[in-house]
Amino acid sequence: MIKRSEEIKPAMPGVILELITYNREKYNKFESSDPDELITRLQPDQVNWVNLDGLNNSDIIEKLQAHFCLHPLLVDDVLADQRPKAEEYDDYLFVTLKMLYRIEGTSIDYEQVSFVLGSNYLLTFQEKEGDLFEGFRERIRQDLGKVRKKHADYLLYRLIDIIVDNYYAVLDRIGDIIDDIEETVYENPTNETFYKIQALKKELIYLRKALYPLRDALSKLVKGESDFVREENLRYFSDVYDHVSHIIDSMDTFKDLTSSLMDIHINAMNTKMNEVMKVLTVISTIFMPLTFIVGVYGMNFKFMPELDWQYGYFLVWGIMGAIFVTMMIYFKKKKWF
Amino acid sequence: MIKRSEEIKPAMPGVILELITYNREKYNKFESSDPDELITRLQPDQVNWVNLDGLNNSDIIEKLQAHFCLHPLLVDDVLADQRPKAEEYDDYLFVTLKMLYRIEGTSIDYEQVSFVLGSNYLLTFQEKEGDLFEGFRERIRQDLGKVRKKHADYLLYRLIDIIVDNYYAVLDRIGDIIDDIEETVYENPTNETFYKIQALKKELIYLRKALYPLRDALSKLVKGESDFVREENLRYFSDVYDHVSHIIDSMDTFKDLTSSLMDIHINAMNTKMNEVMKVLTVISTIFMPLTFIVGVYGMNFKFMPELDWQYGYFLVWGIMGAIFVTMMIYFKKKKWF
Amino acid sequence: MIKRSEEIKPAMPGVILELITYNREKYNKFESSDPDELITRLQPDQVNWVNLDGLNNSDIIEKLQAHFCLHPLLVDDVLADQRPKAEEYDDYLFVTLKMLYRIEGTSIDYEQVSFVLGSNYLLTFQEKEGDLFEGFRERIRQDLGKVRKKHADYLLYRLIDIIVDNYYAVLDRIGDIIDDIEETVYENPTNETFYKIQALKKELIYLRKALYPLRDALSKLVKGESDFVREENLRYFSDVYDHVSHIIDSMDTFKDLTSSLMDIHINAMNTKMNEVMKVLTVISTIFMPLTFIVGVYGMNFKFMPELDWQYGYFLVWGIMGAIFVTMMIYFKKKKWF
Amino acid sequence: MIKRSEEIKPAMPGVILELITYNREKYNKFESSDPDELITRLQPDQVNWVNLDGLNNSDIIEKLQAHFCLHPLLVDDVLADQRPKAEEYDDYLFVTLKMLYRIEGTSIDYEQVSFVLGSNYLLTFQEKEGDLFEGFRERIRQDLGKVRKKHADYLLYRLIDIIVDNYYAVLDRIGDIIDDIEETVYENPTNETFYKIQALKKELIYLRKALYPLRDALSKLVKGESDFVREENLRYFSDVYDHVSHIIDSMDTFKDLTSSLMDIHINAMNTKMNEVMKVLTVISTIFMPLTFIVGVYGMNFKFMPELDWQYGYFLVWGIMGAIFVTMMIYFKKKKWF
Amino acid sequence: MIKRSEEIKPAMPGVILELITYNREKYNKFESSDPDELITRLQPDQVNWVNLDGLNNSDIIEKLQAHFCLHPLLVDDVLADQRPKAEEYDDYLFVTLKMLYRIEGTSIDYEQVSFVLGSNYLLTFQEKEGDLFEGFRERIRQDLGKVRKKHADYLLYRLIDIIVDNYYAVLDRIGDIIDDIEETVYENPTNETFYKIQALKKELIYLRKALYPLRDALSKLVKGESDFVREENLRYFSDVYDHVSHIIDSMDTFKDLTSSLMDIHINAMNTKMNEVMKVLTVISTIFMPLTFIVGVYGMNFKFMPELDWQYGYFLVWGIMGAIFVTMMIYFKKKKWF
Ligand SMILES: [Mg+2]
Ligand SMILES: [Mg+2]
Ligand SMILES: [Mg+2]
Ligand SMILES: [Mg+2]
Ligand SMILES: [Mg+2]
Ligand SMILES: [Mg+2]
Ligand SMILES: [Mg+2]
Ligand SMILES: [Mg+2]
Ligand SMILES: [Mg+2]
Ligand SMILES: [Mg+2]
Ligand SMILES: [Mg+2]
Ligand SMILES: [Mg+2]
Ligand SMILES: [Mg+2]
Ligand SMILES: [Mg+2]
Ligand SMILES: [Mg+2]
Ligand SMILES: [Mg+2]
Ligand SMILES: [Mg+2]
Ligand SMILES: [Mg+2]
Ligand SMILES: [Mg+2]
Ligand SMILES: [Mg+2]
Ligand SMILES: [Mg+2]
Ligand SMILES: [Mg+2]
Ligand SMILES: [Mg+2]
Ligand SMILES: [Mg+2]
Ligand SMILES: [Mg+2]
Ligand SMILES: [Mg+2]
Ligand SMILES: [Mg+2]
Ligand SMILES: [Mg+2]
Ligand SMILES: [Mg+2]
Ligand SMILES: [Mg+2]
Ligand SMILES: [Mg+2]
Repeated sequence: MIKRSEEIKPAMPGVILELITYNREKYNKFESSDPDELITRLQPDQVNWVNLDGLNNSDIIEKLQAHFCLHPLLVDDVLADQRPKAEEYDDYLFVTLKMLYRIEGTSIDYEQVSFVLGSNYLLTFQEKEGDLFEGFRERIRQDLGKVRKKHADYLLYRLIDIIVDNYYAVLDRIGDIIDDIEETVYENPTNETFYKIQALKKELIYLRKALYPLRDALSKLVKGESDFVREENLRYFSDVYDHVSHIIDSMDTFKDLTSSLMDIHINAMNTKMNEVMKVLTVISTIFMPLTFIVGVYGMNFKFMPELDWQYGYFLVWGIMGAIFVTMMIYFKKKKWF
Repeated sequence: MIKRSEEIKPAMPGVILELITYNREKYNKFESSDPDELITRLQPDQVNWVNLDGLNNSDIIEKLQAHFCLHPLLVDDVLADQRPKAEEYDDYLFVTLKMLYRIEGTSIDYEQVSFVLGSNYLLTFQEKEGDLFEGFRERIRQDLGKVRKKHADYLLYRLIDIIVDNYYAVLDRIGDIIDDIEETVYENPTNETFYKIQALKKELIYLRKALYPLRDALSKLVKGESDFVREENLRYFSDVYDHVSHIIDSMDTFKDLTSSLMDIHINAMNTKMNEVMKVLTVISTIFMPLTFIVGVYGMNFKFMPELDWQYGYFLVWGIMGAIFVTMMIYFKKKKWF
Repeated sequence: MIKRSEEIKPAMPGVILELITYNREKYNKFESSDPDELITRLQPDQVNWVNLDGLNNSDIIEKLQAHFCLHPLLVDDVLADQRPKAEEYDDYLFVTLKMLYRIEGTSIDYEQVSFVLGSNYLLTFQEKEGDLFEGFRERIRQDLGKVRKKHADYLLYRLIDIIVDNYYAVLDRIGDIIDDIEETVYENPTNETFYKIQALKKELIYLRKALYPLRDALSKLVKGESDFVREENLRYFSDVYDHVSHIIDSMDTFKDLTSSLMDIHINAMNTKMNEVMKVLTVISTIFMPLTFIVGVYGMNFKFMPELDWQYGYFLVWGIMGAIFVTMMIYFKKKKWF
Repeated sequence: MIKRSEEIKPAMPGVILELITYNREKYNKFESSDPDELITRLQPDQVNWVNLDGLNNSDIIEKLQAHFCLHPLLVDDVLADQRPKAEEYDDYLFVTLKMLYRIEGTSIDYEQVSFVLGSNYLLTFQEKEGDLFEGFRERIRQDLGKVRKKHADYLLYRLIDIIVDNYYAVLDRIGDIIDDIEETVYENPTNETFYKIQALKKELIYLRKALYPLRDALSKLVKGESDFVREENLRYFSDVYDHVSHIIDSMDTFKDLTSSLMDIHINAMNTKMNEVMKVLTVISTIFMPLTFIVGVYGMNFKFMPELDWQYGYFLVWGIMGAIFVTMMIYFKKKKWF
Repeated sequence: MIKRSEEIKPAMPGVILELITYNREKYNKFESSDPDELITRLQPDQVNWVNLDGLNNSDIIEKLQAHFCLHPLLVDDVLADQRPKAEEYDDYLFVTLKMLYRIEGTSIDYEQVSFVLGSNYLLTFQEKEGDLFEGFRERIRQDLGKVRKKHADYLLYRLIDIIVDNYYAVLDRIGDIIDDIEETVYENPTNETFYKIQALKKELIYLRKALYPLRDALSKLVKGESDFVREENLRYFSDVYDHVSHIIDSMDTFKDLTSSLMDIHINAMNTKMNEVMKVLTVISTIFMPLTFIVGVYGMNFKFMPELDWQYGYFLVWGIMGAIFVTMMIYFKKKKWF
């Protein structure tokens, strides 16, 4: 029933468990594939950040579950495709959301990242190897910014903040694509343009699915409902909440612009169609009467006085020329071309 | 006035009443078509799960109603087509919802299942024989999972959970159909594609009708408004609530994707139409003038100098060739083909 | 300013005032057109149901108003076209809603029915003679069901319940019409089908106007805000509320289905149009070149070598046949027919 | 910045200030263009209704402002185009709304009317001379109805009630226009019909803008939030609130009907178009092959055996007749005409 | 990650920091590019208005941040593209919104302006040089209005009020453009008209993005949630809130009108298209049969009796004339032209 992400890597390529422990004075990083060893290294008087990449090793997960007393429902949520949410348990706060990890053209891939925030530790569960936190890990090591002076809840804030900031990149990209389409859609309404608009719409649909529940989850934290977020840090979560609201506003704007582009495309298509029909009608309206006239004088009646006139032929040309000119003036007036 | 499900089976084929009683130590299963006998078998110190398949035997229902003091309005709700809801009575909690029991192509059949949760019993009323609980019954018997250690409210949770998980299967199916349509709709906008999209839309309309009230009902339970759901089990109901929210999110996403597919279909239709019109216009624009010209020299005027020229005929071919080439270049430039 | 119903009957045909008094032991029915007489017959220790058919006799209404101390605004609401609502006064509860009294094809007629519930009486005001309560009156007389054991608020519940149940008949009808349309709309998109869809849409618009405010009114009663509804009977009103919610859900479903039918109709229309255009284009594309060719050999140039060839004529037929076959293969490939 | 109404009359034509003072025993009416004189005539122990027509005399407004201690922001709201609202100040209640004063065809003119309700006075500010209150003034003078027995808040209620009742006239009108359009739109979809629908839509857009905020304003009063509305009169304001809700319901219904009319119009247009195309296609499909055939026998090949046959000509007519009949049967079958 | 406004000027052209200090008696203005100097000039017993134009000088911003203890998140919000909001900190109130600073045709440029309101100071941060406050600065200097008698929160109100009033100018402009389009769209549906409508729609989309969050921010202030807005001044903020609500109402109205214009445009396009098709069909329907007839008598059969008739030729003309007249009457009847 549970829908696992389809692209989880089959084998464990080297290290997948990582422990970073730190406080104002100390810093240590430990990488391992043995959860038992890692657990012995946890530092009760420091912040402990445990990161797991890949969710297909049930042995590791069970050991972490046992050590941190993780609720079975929480583990289910970590392993399954879960809508973003924040949930308070007795001993920890659980947060899960979607991280963007690859953007190609208009197509985006999502990775589910889950957080368990305890009093002195933060667990992060990632579906796949690789994340957006590398630069931040380095900042912790070098003791840049406030993170080494703060508790585990600030670490949680920073990671969510990094993930949310990454959404802006998608927004920029979508904004650029909309600008591109806008330039071509007026003059040249090809199907390619149309497909681009549809692809945009689709991406916005998926983004909405990731972001609306995230806003709800953060709003729970911002209201101070969690015991694991210190009051002094509420403002930081409020800032991320703000960013998510901003992104949602922009997404809604993009959605409206996209549907406006659809209208423009359809109008351009119709304009083109109208032009085709006008050409057909102009040509038919001019040549059908003329063809009729020459047909008349192609008849083989024995008694057709005009045929014998000296200038009959030229007269016909004159009449046809007059018809042609009249028609042209008429269509010109009607602004058909 | 009450709309009974139309496909209720006419006769009672064998057993339709089932009683499962269990606690940590004991387990018993009893099947019968005699409600009086079943009532004598109820175990006050165990969990009693009474299941009834088929709602057309008013004798059985009246006896159950009498024994469990079921409110007449509750019995009405069990028998009639009822929107999903949770309602607290003095002596029990009443929950009713729709179970999916057959999925064929894009068409889904629903079966109404109603629950009456008392302090030490759970009644389940099903419209038709057969359900999704067979595997779970076996788990109870073998004492797998937590169910034997828990009270009747946990049993209720498990049954609802199984029903809700089943909705994911429909979602997967709909997702697959959308992928299929997406592949064909761009290039080949047949009516068949269109009908598939419409069938999807219809199924989503019915699913929404089943799921939105279910979410409302569960949200009532999750808020702890019921005396019959133990606080320790609230988290489980919260998890099902979560799943229903997730399914609703996906359904909304599918709805948006479906309407996007409609746009693509319509655009493909219009593109095809435009092509047909272009072919017509190109052919007419080329051949009408040419036909006019040959018409001119088909006239029977006595005095038509060109007719006597040695190379008049070839000259006309030359002129017509020139017109043809000019037209082709013109249309090529206009990108009409 | 006040919009009176346009079809109120002009004269008073016989009895229009009716009083039913009852309790567990007694039952009496009294019909009259004299309000003074009726008032003397009221039984303080029984339930008194006063029903008035037709609202154009201001004398009767004034006497009832005087006896029951009806507020002038309440009387205004009874007489005018009023949106469904429930309003608590000091001495009584006022409820007004729309009763369906005639359904013909897709067209429905509404009758406004107003209720004034006092401690031991219920007044019902109907715009027109005839209602849905006849069977229920008989049940009171024969002391069937609970009504004789209950107070006036239960009587109010029963009457509203009967009116609401009647809406299900319309739902069934609309469901059947939708099924009918669905069968024809795919293959045969006539204007008649389209008009049926529009008529449905219109009926749903009016139903919504009657039902949404009714739900709001009932929700006020269900919340226990009224002193005149006994707590023991709240569950009954909650049941009617439930039915109205169910009907509204179905109506929304029907609305979505209807707009889906519209899409299908439009698609069928467009498909038909495309076919017409294809026929035109195929015929033109085949015969325009052929007509040109025969035009060429209809020219009267003195020197046209082909005309003198022995098999020129047959050669031309051959060429034209080749063109025809080529075209047919081309269109077949393009799936134009 | 402030958008003054554009049609305020330039000069003061005679009286523009009016004072009506009354209680159970006394009644006086005083008209003047001198605010100082009027102020001396105010009766502390009576209800004082001060009405000002025209807002371009800043002298008068300043004197009223000084005497009644009107807040500058309130005066701004009176003078500018203001969305309907109710606002409580320390010494008075301020209410502003839109009065309909001219209805021509589908076009409606609005006049802003503002009310300042003090403990024993009511100020009314009107943009233009003339209002809907003339009949009511007469009722005060003749002591009809309850107004002379009541306080200034009841006067406010009556004036708002009169204004709101006037909206029903527009509703009736719109209903009639919708009926008219409905009769013509099915058969005869002219552009005139379309323009009427658009004009309706536009009027509904403006009505919504006037009525939604009015409902919000009245809801504030109904909830008893104002000290200047006596509790005994809340029910009256509740009645007006009710009427506004009713009008809004009808407006929403009309909006839905209007968009339904649009669908019908578009369908009628498309049906007409399809017919045109069918005529074209039928004519082309019949005459193109026939014209080709006669073209064949207009060729001038020396050797064309058919030309020499005795009955060749009649044979060709026969073939052409057969083609014609076949085509007619084919189109008849396809229901193209 | 942070999206800086793209058009910030590169170098500092002269003065960009400005300090205005005032109370009832004193007034001073000081311009500088040295934040240290400015800070020494702050007057603890007066209102201090510090304005910064241009946000690219990090030195200045850091010094202001240090002196006023600005939270790093606040500075981030000032520097980045931020959705309008109001946020209460311990020592100040932070407000940020969008100021319109250039309107060309339908295209609007926005400038982000941020406010920090302390107990006796107001900081304003502008992205670009130049603002709407020049006239108001002069009013402060000359002691016009109430501002010199009031505290810094009234100054904040006045600045927001000026910015909001400026939005009315855009509304007027949009209203005028809508009127313009309305005049042309019925008769002359060119693509230019369509592009204008689309440009309007786009501008309304961006306006909405600026105004909806502003209304939310102001509503927070109006509810009295901020310690830095004195209760006596709440009414002023309520007035600005009101104006923003009014603008949003108008915007929604414009949005509806714009989509109505789209409908009109599309209808006009379709009408035009239908006309083109009718012309084509009329011409084809008249000339195809005539051309067929003259084709018949252009055939070269040896035995064609009509050809030898004395008046055959004139008879054919007569028949063709009759056909022509019949057709004209038929089309006239069908109202095709
Ligand atoms: Mg899950
Ligand atoms: Mg994707
Ligand atoms: Mg990862
Ligand atoms: Mg950030
Ligand atoms: Mg960009
Ligand atoms: Mg029911
Ligand atoms: Mg079904
Ligand atoms: Mg079953
Ligand atoms: Mg589950
Ligand atoms: Mg799939
Ligand atoms: Mg879960
Ligand atoms: Mg009323
Ligand atoms: Mg009324
Ligand atoms: Mg009706
Ligand atoms: Mg009746
Ligand atoms: Mg019922
Ligand atoms: Mg049915
Ligand atoms: Mg029920
Ligand atoms: Mg179309
Ligand atoms: Mg104003
Ligand atoms: Mg007036
Ligand atoms: Mg009224
Ligand atoms: Mg009417
Ligand atoms: Mg921020
Ligand atoms: Mg920011
Ligand atoms: Mg812009
Ligand atoms: Mg600036
Ligand atoms: Mg202002
Ligand atoms: Mg205007
Ligand atoms: Mg104001
Ligand atoms: Mg079209």
